[in-house]
Amino acid sequence: MSSSRDTAVTVIGLGPMGRALAAAFLAAGVRTTVWNRTPGKDRDLVAAGAVAAGTAEEAVGASPLTVICLVNYDATDSVLRQESVTAALKGRTVVNLSADIPERARDTGRWADEHGIGYLDGAIMTPTPSIGTPAGVFLFSGPEALHAEHRTVLGALGGTHTHLGEEIGRAAAYDIALLDVFWTSMAGYVHALAVARAEGISPTELAPFAQGIGAILPPLFQEWAEDVESGGYSGEGNPITSGVSTMAHVVHASEAHGIEANVMRAIEGLARRTVALGHGTEGFSRVAEVLGRR
Amino acid sequence: MSSSRDTAVTVIGLGPMGRALAAAFLAAGVRTTVWNRTPGKDRDLVAAGAVAAGTAEEAVGASPLTVICLVNYDATDSVLRQESVTAALKGRTVVNLSADIPERARDTGRWADEHGIGYLDGAIMTPTPSIGTPAGVFLFSGPEALHAEHRTVLGALGGTHTHLGEEIGRAAAYDIALLDVFWTSMAGYVHALAVARAEGISPTELAPFAQGIGAILPPLFQEWAEDVESGGYSGEGNPITSGVSTMAHVVHASEAHGIEANVMRAIEGLARRTVALGHGTEGFSRVAEVLGRR
Repeated sequence: MSSSRDTAVTVIGLGPMGRALAAAFLAAGVRTTVWNRTPGKDRDLVAAGAVAAGTAEEAVGASPLTVICLVNYDATDSVLRQESVTAALKGRTVVNLSADIPERARDTGRWADEHGIGYLDGAIMTPTPSIGTPAGVFLFSGPEALHAEHRTVLGALGGTHTHLGEEIGRAAAYDIALLDVFWTSMAGYVHALAVARAEGISPTELAPFAQGIGAILPPLFQEWAEDVESGGYSGEGNPITSGVSTMAHVVHASEAHGIEANVMRAIEGLARRTVALGHGTEGFSRVAEVLGRR
Repeated sequence: MSSSRDTAVTVIGLGPMGRALAAAFLAAGVRTTVWNRTPGKDRDLVAAGAVAAGTAEEAVGASPLTVICLVNYDATDSVLRQESVTAALKGRTVVNLSADIPERARDTGRWADEHGIGYLDGAIMTPTPSIGTPAGVFLFSGPEALHAEHRTVLGALGGTHTHLGEEIGRAAAYDIALLDVFWTSMAGYVHALAVARAEGISPTELAPFAQGIGAILPPLFQEWAEDVESGGYSGEGNPITSGVSTMAHVVHASEAHGIEANVMRAIEGLARRTVALGHGTEGFSRVAEVLGRR
């Protein structure tokens, strides 16, 4: 059976994440060809044994598998959908680890089908330093057989790999939902740091308590998922009306310091709308249903 | 030395949290007097050994320490600042575990000083079921000596108790900042559940991956606190410009399903403003400083 020693991969896109991916392949002994639109990003990788391709066409032709990681699918299209590159990819496989919306992944899947190119879509859920370590989290969607064929070489990236299903948009859909959780949480945290500072509390004084809040989130994520799935929305002990009151306090305390509170104002608005719809005694998880109502 | 067996406490406010507080005092063998503005909330507590006071004045007169937990400080004022109640409190101590903005805590501190009433402000950072268990997190501010005097009886509430300092508004300031983190994170999560559902991903399919995101937050909270404290804001591996791109994807993917994305639009706006101020290559933690700028 094949091992990563007799496999080869091409990595297109040498931003921080692309470089981390290429470095992980090299570290696992995979023959790695690299290419980036703007030159000069491949020096460390070449020093570590990577082959620098002169053109994108040459790059994708060098390996049965191309991993592409660019800022979005406008960027991947501008590389992959050049006639010569598309032709060179015929019969080979592309794994797209760039981030974009599910529709773009589906559109890329159709393009790949039309041109006889194997296509897996993917998402990387953890930051650059996690690549090549057990901490990495990778999501994939697309043909199961294609994922099985390339799982050994992709395994060089380390971490946990989950194949979410054949529907090509699924990895991007998970990615969007999880980035929603991530950026919203971090936005709440930086806002809290600003408000705390205005109250004379330093960032590192607040951090341990914020970490305590962070620790109570995962079990609530599970409980609230069950609420939304069952339509239960129990507000016992923490009804939305009580949440609305504390949200208003956050807005008031922020703005009293001249710190805008547009994010919390939007959250308070959603909560008040949910109360107005007659759900005041239920849990805040009911908001998921109100948001989904067209 | 005194033990909780020869101490007494009055609990005012018998909503879900107030009832949990009274039950924890009773379970610890503290003589507990209870009162609520609307009657009928004290039955289970009286069955468990609580003394039901007929009036607020009688309630506060029954114990050296009154713990009050109402929806906000308008509500606590309406009870405590009645002439007869204020008079009955002279020489006694009030611990206010209601939630409100720091200014209201400071105002209540001034009122207490003027009337010879000992005053500690507090905040409960964990939900009702945590009360009386090791999971509870209580913050206090106000005179250190007063906190030391009452820490044994307050210890009956279980969990971790932190005295944040003499400045009376400090517990409320931490509370506001931590509620900011909590509600913003949970709002991101319910929004993610709605978007995931529209993409055919069930809440309990998303939850384990959201828990994975939840697990990466606490270490980032510490890193970003250090960024903000040092003014470092390193965006290495994850510059704001890359965040802006994924935020725009979340907005786009949500709105394509008819799901409003006002919260993420506000976050994206903050991030874009920070980029426009010349911080595009820095980390998103820089937003804390931009928010705090007047």
